[in-house]
Amino acid sequence: MQKENENHLSRRSFFKQSGALATGVAIGIGGAGIVSANAKATQVEPLPWPYTKLDVEMARKLGHLGYYKNECSAGAFYGILWPLKEKIGHPYDTIPIEPPNIMTFGAGGVAGWATLCGALNGASAAITLVTKNYKPIINELFGWYQDESFPSDQSNEYASKHQFLVEKYKSDKILTKSIAKSPLCHASVTDWCKASGYGSGAKERSERCARLAGDVAAHAVKLLNLDAEGKFKPTYAFSEEVAGCRKCHFKGKDCEAGQNTRGKMDCLQCHEAHDI
Amino acid sequence: MQKENENHLSRRSFFKQSGALATGVAIGIGGAGIVSANAKATQVEPLPWPYTKLDVEMARKLGHLGYYKNECSAGAFYGILWPLKEKIGHPYDTIPIEPPNIMTFGAGGVAGWATLCGALNGASAAITLVTKNYKPIINELFGWYQDESFPSDQSNEYASKHQFLVEKYKSDKILTKSIAKSPLCHASVTDWCKASGYGSGAKERSERCARLAGDVAAHAVKLLNLDAEGKFKPTYAFSEEVAGCRKCHFKGKDCEAGQNTRGKMDCLQCHEAHDI
Repeated sequence: MQKENENHLSRRSFFKQSGALATGVAIGIGGAGIVSANAKATQVEPLPWPYTKLDVEMARKLGHLGYYKNECSAGAFYGILWPLKEKIGHPYDTIPIEPPNIMTFGAGGVAGWATLCGALNGASAAITLVTKNYKPIINELFGWYQDESFPSDQSNEYASKHQFLVEKYKSDKILTKSIAKSPLCHASVTDWCKASGYGSGAKERSERCARLAGDVAAHAVKLLNLDAEGKFKPTYAFSEEVAGCRKCHFKGKDCEAGQNTRGKMDCLQCHEAHDI
Repeated sequence: MQKENENHLSRRSFFKQSGALATGVAIGIGGAGIVSANAKATQVEPLPWPYTKLDVEMARKLGHLGYYKNECSAGAFYGILWPLKEKIGHPYDTIPIEPPNIMTFGAGGVAGWATLCGALNGASAAITLVTKNYKPIINELFGWYQDESFPSDQSNEYASKHQFLVEKYKSDKILTKSIAKSPLCHASVTDWCKASGYGSGAKERSERCARLAGDVAAHAVKLLNLDAEGKFKPTYAFSEEVAGCRKCHFKGKDCEAGQNTRGKMDCLQCHEAHDI
């Protein structure tokens, strides 16, 4: 193998090695710790990309519009990034923001599996593009989401007064609100269906998720605007119940003692409470 | 408002309207159905981007390497897209693929919330970039994941023989395997901890997730290669238990009859079985 910078793996040598891989020959790469592949790649704008304060209500309307273009996840992503592309241009002109985009897969909690709410998934990807503080901001967004009542009064009003950007959407009714107590699509949809009386396949349920996609994009922009001003302060805290569970069950090293879990979701949605 | 093409919303008029929005003035946009915003945007390569068959074992090693660069979600994304960028170049040279990348947020089931497994999230984003068949392929990937035993024998072998691309990783042990029966990070991590006896904060648990990130990237590439050859055939089917639940509980219009849910996850991980 030609001599490489010890932390770099050139394109030529990588493919040489991948050939070796195919025949089962072990790879030996010198260097300290982790190999930094792709050092000679084309220049691409490193993250975070530039952010400028956006209109929260514009994001709400664009998130709703984005849902009708390509569902919840692509919609929330679009609601945050389309105005950035319009205001800033490059590098936002290099990735597909118009739905279908890279986050399209998040619809229905990823291809209909109802895992993570697609609006949260799409908004999280957008947040990651634009700030190094993505982790506390996403944490705050998730905490807000699970305690928030959707759809928001603002979205209900836009819909009922035909102020959204879609002329013919699925319902202009004021829709019942519900609190998911979870960032999962499955819990969010089912709780809303039970509260509203609509089935999960009803057009009103789709419209509820379109409004929610706008609400999530809007709240993400609100947090990003604070971050841009240096005024973002995390406020989310575990509920008393979750804090109680986490006295024993947390990310730690003693499996037997219950340190065999991780996460921040409401434990009692799936688990029975038990005495210590 | 100046006259616009009825399905288009120009940059100038959008921002004019967003100003109107801020003062609460209703927007009236003519046109049939959904407004197509951003029609005059800079040309960007529409999805799907070109794909060429990749080496499955290269993806496994790169996914593992990517975990050590920036955790599970960025790692699986990188494991699939880095070799595509090397082989194809543009448009893969326009987005950050080297971790941290757009999917970094997925780590720990999104910012530590332990919702969707980050490796699945990152791989799903990569799949969405490269094929119009992203939905059935992701569905297949999720179905495979929940019934698969991680880490794979192949990953355990690479680690124990020091054939991965990282020289100093957290453990070279043959690690216990476990089946998550779920695409959620929380279930996947806890089931593995209980099977192996390691805490969720143990370095062996991190190494297990690094191997899993490689395994997920590898399986995604296997499915994408079949798709590229026109040979991809979905095989995933609901378990007998889930199929039983779905006789009543599915995405439908009759909320009272139980059609108030959606999703494909194993119902009995969180819900009690009940008689009909």
